[in-house]
Order: sequence, then structure tokens, then C-alpha cells
Amino acid sequence: MSILVVGSIGFDFIETPFGNSGKIIGGAGTYICLSASFFSNKISVVSKVGKDFPTSYMQPFIARKINTRGIQVDQNEETFFWSGKYNSDLNTRITKHTQLNVLKNFIPEIPPHILKPEFLVLGNMSPQIQKMVLENLNSKPKLVLMDTMNYWMSQELEQLKLVLKKVDIISIKDEEARELSGEYSLIKSASKIRKMGPKFVIIRKGDHGTLLFYNKFIFFAPSLPLVEIYDPTGAGDTFNGGFIGYLSKSGDISFDNMKRAVIFGSALSSFCVEKFGTEQLQSINQNDLSDRVQQFVDMVQFNYEIEDL
Amino acid sequence: MSILVVGSIGFDFIETPFGNSGKIIGGAGTYICLSASFFSNKISVVSKVGKDFPTSYMQPFIARKINTRGIQVDQNEETFFWSGKYNSDLNTRITKHTQLNVLKNFIPEIPPHILKPEFLVLGNMSPQIQKMVLENLNSKPKLVLMDTMNYWMSQELEQLKLVLKKVDIISIKDEEARELSGEYSLIKSASKIRKMGPKFVIIRKGDHGTLLFYNKFIFFAPSLPLVEIYDPTGAGDTFNGGFIGYLSKSGDISFDNMKRAVIFGSALSSFCVEKFGTEQLQSINQNDLSDRVQQFVDMVQFNYEIEDL
Repeated sequence: MSILVVGSIGFDFIETPFGNSGKIIGGAGTYICLSASFFSNKISVVSKVGKDFPTSYMQPFIARKINTRGIQVDQNEETFFWSGKYNSDLNTRITKHTQLNVLKNFIPEIPPHILKPEFLVLGNMSPQIQKMVLENLNSKPKLVLMDTMNYWMSQELEQLKLVLKKVDIISIKDEEARELSGEYSLIKSASKIRKMGPKFVIIRKGDHGTLLFYNKFIFFAPSLPLVEIYDPTGAGDTFNGGFIGYLSKSGDISFDNMKRAVIFGSALSSFCVEKFGTEQLQSINQNDLSDRVQQFVDMVQFNYEIEDL
Repeated sequence: MSILVVGSIGFDFIETPFGNSGKIIGGAGTYICLSASFFSNKISVVSKVGKDFPTSYMQPFIARKINTRGIQVDQNEETFFWSGKYNSDLNTRITKHTQLNVLKNFIPEIPPHILKPEFLVLGNMSPQIQKMVLENLNSKPKLVLMDTMNYWMSQELEQLKLVLKKVDIISIKDEEARELSGEYSLIKSASKIRKMGPKFVIIRKGDHGTLLFYNKFIFFAPSLPLVEIYDPTGAGDTFNGGFIGYLSKSGDISFDNMKRAVIFGSALSSFCVEKFGTEQLQSINQNDLSDRVQQFVDMVQFNYEIEDL
């Protein structure tokens, strides 16, 4: 089933204790698309880049059969640029520069072929842009997933609340769930956020795993313990892309299928962090993914008999 | 099968953002015994208390059919006392007072009836005492689990290394695994610690779950997301008691049965933190435990078909 991804595409410059990445392709839209492409060849992306964006950087999208007609190129502006530095535990980072550039006045233009997407992913960006996308579609998608961050909570809370009313799933980091809800307990957080609109709440705890909340149900998937985490950039976007990609394959949006989607999203995310940027997402294949999913299964499944209780 | 628990029994005074506990019964030995008693009525405890230890504080042990003949009472000394204060996130705490008192010169005396225990739990205490226990037994237990903490790593590392060579399982917190191994990655930590002796390594990540390492295998169980964590004191000891208790029921010490034991230990641990001290462990029954285990199963299990891959 068709997926529309709206999210940033730009340059990242990442510093970790292991070295720096140089200026590489980044942005939420990039990670979401590459990750979702493991399950679908009906992905379209809407974004905007500048005059300095090399044609060769379109190659990863084309190689994965992602429709790039919705990427506007502004010949008068520079591409979005982010640089940041991770601390030695790789769990915290500081942003050194955020240059919005072309995204400053981004008006998303959705090409006619994708005005009725079945799945929609709204990457982390201004709630105003997210709202415009929802309003411009010709019909309500089967499922809408959004991401956001604390910046928008402090700068555009009212707009954000309007978007929240129109989406099915929100996927955010634990500290952002706490900020949005004003609750420390993630159960209370999820409960409050569900009252703001989304029926499903995904809370990503970084290398401590991912929670999916729906009604009174909770599903939990761990992050794979890795020998070395190299670069966490894009892990959340990769999760989101894999999650929606998996659901779109069968179109089954039941809670049970979402559990499996969480596992696949987590598996893709575990690859993402093993090298700089999108390097691993571009180099692994379906077999690598299958093996990694099997590792998740082995790690959490146990034989369980009722007489144990 | 019989279980010998060697661990502290004493007084705790706990401060949390919700108030203070007053002077209540605490100590690793207490939590381990109460938790294990959900599975076994063949538990004996070896410990030492002082002249100020009220007879009524023996009641929780007697009520759960725990053999207390190994608890020495020193009429010339005070009981072990610990007080601490948790920060608002309840993940970190400061120790305000540790008064070893009777445990200062504790020589464990193992009563004749328990010189051949089938399961042995060495609660967190001086490696010298742990070593004495191992040397005084008449035969090697089927399984020995030990706990320790960073204090012993800095004060008695050589003794600790001797004990490590003689145990089957070590169960420690994540930051202690990192300190003992000198590795940040928990996979590398577990690998290095296994080289020090124990075939099985359990790393407890507090409210981020528990990892069990064996050869190349990893099993992970989450902590139950709770509406409110009230008092984390004793959560690790409760886990250890439940883990060994569950194994002792069938005597099956396979890796597969240990996975289930991790789930039962985690379930008991999730009760422990809901109220001050041992209050919940003393008030819940087998049905409460069964329901809680079912919550863990629901939270992590998913239907998985090979064609998904």
C-alpha cells in the first residue's frame, strides 16, 4: 500500500567519540524512506532541498525505488544542515548548528499522484507544516503517524495540539512524552497523550527499548544490546519508517500486527546505529534484516505454560 | 529443593518524594527470602541481628515458613541500619547512613541442617564472608547465585575475584557490571565477567529491564511500566529471590527455565517497588503473582510467523 513521507532531507555533520562523519546526507525524511523501503516500493517523499544538494545524494532514494517527485529544489537557498556532538555514553548530544535554510519557509507541495496516500508519516517538523499536509490531502489515509520534538512543544504548542487531534499514532522519545504530558510515569504520559488525539502512542526509550500503548494494552520491545553503538542519529526515524513500512505491506493495522511492526522497526533501528548516518541502511539486505529480527525473537520469546502460574 | 540465603537483615529508613518509611525491616536477606518463599518452603537464612531487633520483626519470616535458625542474635550490638534518600526520578539515591553494627565482624555460622543446600544465594556483602560460606558447605550446591556492589570492587577486589571463580551466576546492576568489567557496552561487560568465573551473568537495568547472558545467548525481560514507582529499595534482591525460588521449584537449571525465572523475578520485583520496603511482598498472594506474570507475557509476546521474514 502507498506511503507518503513528509520530512526533512538535508546534510548532517556528526561527531562521536569515534570520529566525525563529514558532511553526509541526513534528515528525518531520508531515514524514514530508506527504512520503509525494505517493505514497500510505493513510497513517495515530500521535502525541499537547496542549490547545494548534489544530484548524487538522490541516488539512495532512486536505488530503493522511492518516488522523489515531491522533493522541491530551491535554486536560491542552501539545504537544511544540522551538526551535533554525542557525549561519550552516546545517549546525550548537543546540537552545534541548526541551519533551517530551505525549510524556513517550506510549503509542502504534494504531487497529484500521492494526494490519496494509504499511509502517511509526518516526520518531526513544524506542526504548521504537518497540519498543511493533512489539510491538502484528498482523503484521510488509513493510518497517520507523526513525530515531534520538545522544540515544537515550547514554540507551537497550540498548532501541535491541532495536529495531534488528526493523527492515529504519535511516536516520540520518552523525555518528549514526559514534557508533552507533564507526567513522569510513562503510563500516565501515554494516557494523557491519548486524550489529546492519537489512539496509539509509541514511546521510544533509545537504547532502553520501545513501548506501544493502545487502550489498556502495552507492548514492549527491547533495543538490541549491541557490542558498540556508533552513531544514534536517525534511530527514531528509522524505527518509524520500518514500523509503517511493515504495516503497509499487508495493510493490517490491528494492534497484533503493530506488535510485529515494532519488532521490525526496532531491528532496522539497531542497524542504523552501527555506523554513521544511513550507511548501514544502504548496505544491508533482506536477509540481514531477517537474521536481525530472529535475534529479537530469540531475545524476548520464552516458552510459557499455564501451569507455571 | 532447598535454598540457603546468606544476606543482611536489618533496619532501613527510606526517604522518597512521597514521604518516609519510618524504621522498617530491610536488608538483602529479607527481600531474597520473602521473594523466594513464593516458590519454596525449604528456605533457610543465615544472618545476624542485634539486641534491638524486635521479635515481631521475625514474623514475616515465620509467616512464610522460612527457617530462621541461622539468624544469630548478638546481645551486645545493634542491628545493621541503612538510611537513604531517593531523588525525584527515583532512579538515583544517596546513602545517608550505613551502620554495619553486628555485621562488622560477621562470621556466618551455617546450621547443620543446611550444610548441603541445593541452591545458594549470596546476597550483597563482603566477598570475604561470601567466600567463608562457600568454604564451609559440605558439598557444592547445584547452583550458586551471588550479588555484589561497587563498594566491594574498590575495597576487596582480589577477594571478590576469588568468589567469582566459584559461583554459577552473578546478578548485578548495569553500572556495577560496567565498573567490574571496565566496559561500557553491556555485551562486552557480560563477556568479560563470564571470563572471571560465572557461566551466567544477569545485568539488572532498574526500570529498564533485566538481561541474562549465557554463552552467545541473551535473554531480555522488561521491567513492568508502573503508574507510580514508590520505593525501589530491595527490587534487585527481590528479583534474585524470585529467580532462584522459581528455579528451585522444579530444579531445572536450563537456560530455557532461567528465562521463565527471569520473568517471575521481574514480576515480584515490580510488586516490591509499589510500596515502602517489604510491604507488598508481605501482602500479595499467588493469584496476584499469576496475574502480574500474565501482564509480562502480554507485554512481550507476539505472534510470529516465519513468512514475516
